[in-house]
Amino acid sequence: MAKKPEQLWTTPAGDALRWVPGTDLSALDPAATPGWTGDRSDGEKLLAARAPELADLQQRLYAHGRTGGDRSVLLVLEGLDTAGKGGIVRHVVGMVDPQGVMHRAFGVPTQEEKEHGYLWRVRNALPRPGHLGVFDRSHHEQVLVVRVDRLEPEKTWRAHYDELNEFEAEVAASGTVIVKVALIVSAAEQKRRLAERLDRPDKYWKYDPSDVDVRHQLPQYMAAYQELLDRTSTQVAPWYAVPADRKWYARLAVTELLTGALRSLDLGWPPARFDVEAEKARLAAS
Amino acid sequence: MAKKPEQLWTTPAGDALRWVPGTDLSALDPAATPGWTGDRSDGEKLLAARAPELADLQQRLYAHGRTGGDRSVLLVLEGLDTAGKGGIVRHVVGMVDPQGVMHRAFGVPTQEEKEHGYLWRVRNALPRPGHLGVFDRSHHEQVLVVRVDRLEPEKTWRAHYDELNEFEAEVAASGTVIVKVALIVSAAEQKRRLAERLDRPDKYWKYDPSDVDVRHQLPQYMAAYQELLDRTSTQVAPWYAVPADRKWYARLAVTELLTGALRSLDLGWPPARFDVEAEKARLAAS
Repeated sequence: MAKKPEQLWTTPAGDALRWVPGTDLSALDPAATPGWTGDRSDGEKLLAARAPELADLQQRLYAHGRTGGDRSVLLVLEGLDTAGKGGIVRHVVGMVDPQGVMHRAFGVPTQEEKEHGYLWRVRNALPRPGHLGVFDRSHHEQVLVVRVDRLEPEKTWRAHYDELNEFEAEVAASGTVIVKVALIVSAAEQKRRLAERLDRPDKYWKYDPSDVDVRHQLPQYMAAYQELLDRTSTQVAPWYAVPADRKWYARLAVTELLTGALRSLDLGWPPARFDVEAEKARLAAS
Repeated sequence: MAKKPEQLWTTPAGDALRWVPGTDLSALDPAATPGWTGDRSDGEKLLAARAPELADLQQRLYAHGRTGGDRSVLLVLEGLDTAGKGGIVRHVVGMVDPQGVMHRAFGVPTQEEKEHGYLWRVRNALPRPGHLGVFDRSHHEQVLVVRVDRLEPEKTWRAHYDELNEFEAEVAASGTVIVKVALIVSAAEQKRRLAERLDRPDKYWKYDPSDVDVRHQLPQYMAAYQELLDRTSTQVAPWYAVPADRKWYARLAVTELLTGALRSLDLGWPPARFDVEAEKARLAAS
């Protein structure tokens, strides 16, 4: 008998990808598909099959938010340029109702943002109750680009690890389930994707000459990611290191992580906060 | 030879639905399908067929925003409860990349919002360059619920018509194409939809006892909408009165309006802001 697509996960994505501090990041194969024994076609089938459940779970979360609930979900996407953050938003987050999504991409801080602490703009973008927040880059850049480009002295950025953990503990305590995804792309695949942007005029806008500069800093970024994952993987805000050379796998994996986060809320439909029969009578008389 | 689905529009949606001040709103049939000669099945086919173009147009807008462009689109959705605003967001806005969408639902103002003028929270939610902003209710409530529920004296809310027009002229001048949609649902269809919410436990959360109170104010709301449409339909921010008893028609019509707005920007892909050949060489050497 043919296996159902979800049975092709021999280990659930959450278990297969959850970062275990101390693991060697450089040993992770960006072309691997941890936990998944199917091929691309199987993966795309399961992704499509997950859409109704994901949309349903998100709708329950939204319904709770609309009726006084305080739960929310925050998906944090980190990864170098070309790692596929945008594709995840389009293909995974795009499966749910935009009404319940709060998406925010964090770039170089604006002048106003610079006048505040680095967590200010992040706090302002946190998902309201009932919402799925999506961060494309995040507060974690404070120990990534800030570290690699030496935008702050080491003593300063080193202090951020504890701040990041405290901040996320506070966010989690307020009712937000946090899912942090680090998309890991290989240098070779990154080169291929950048070359494609230079080959296609409809992709020029995605290319920035600084992308090549970053390629000369890959060892520094690897070290920064290693320490980030090791030091900010917590019980309430775990990191998942997702191999991203195969876009279909990364999208499927994040779908599974997001579905798992929403399932963990175990939300039914909110009960009526009114007398249903009395309202039926009022409506009939209106 | 079979007609292509888009040929079933005998009058383009924009022309068929654009509000002509002085028209009698009560004469609009909420079950009509102005300009469209097809049936539901044809309408759903065209909606699905529009998805790739809508997504492509929105992607070009987003690309321009990412490369210094200042254009954006703002879709304003007004309508009584059950008129289908949420469904439009889910089914129409849901066709495009969530990265480029800034959605905001305006409810009863919070304490912080009350401490500012009514346009404050609206300004804060305006789409950034390159984005599609979506307002579920809007600044126009200042002459709708505020008027009907007498939350301000008449002299005060009457002053808002000019303010709304000035505000929208300013937003349009900054590069935003504004599309304002008033979804018009009949009292009978509204009753049916509310009854469904009371019949289905998975829809209780959408029901509020005040929805029945509003039904007793329908004549006042009709008068408020009539004056809103008459007085705030401008060249730069036209209103479209969309019959909404047939959800498929309302969704198709808004899709056409949105597609038209994006087409009107006439955006190609942004040109490279770098020397493509030089970058190819740099990349190859990296």
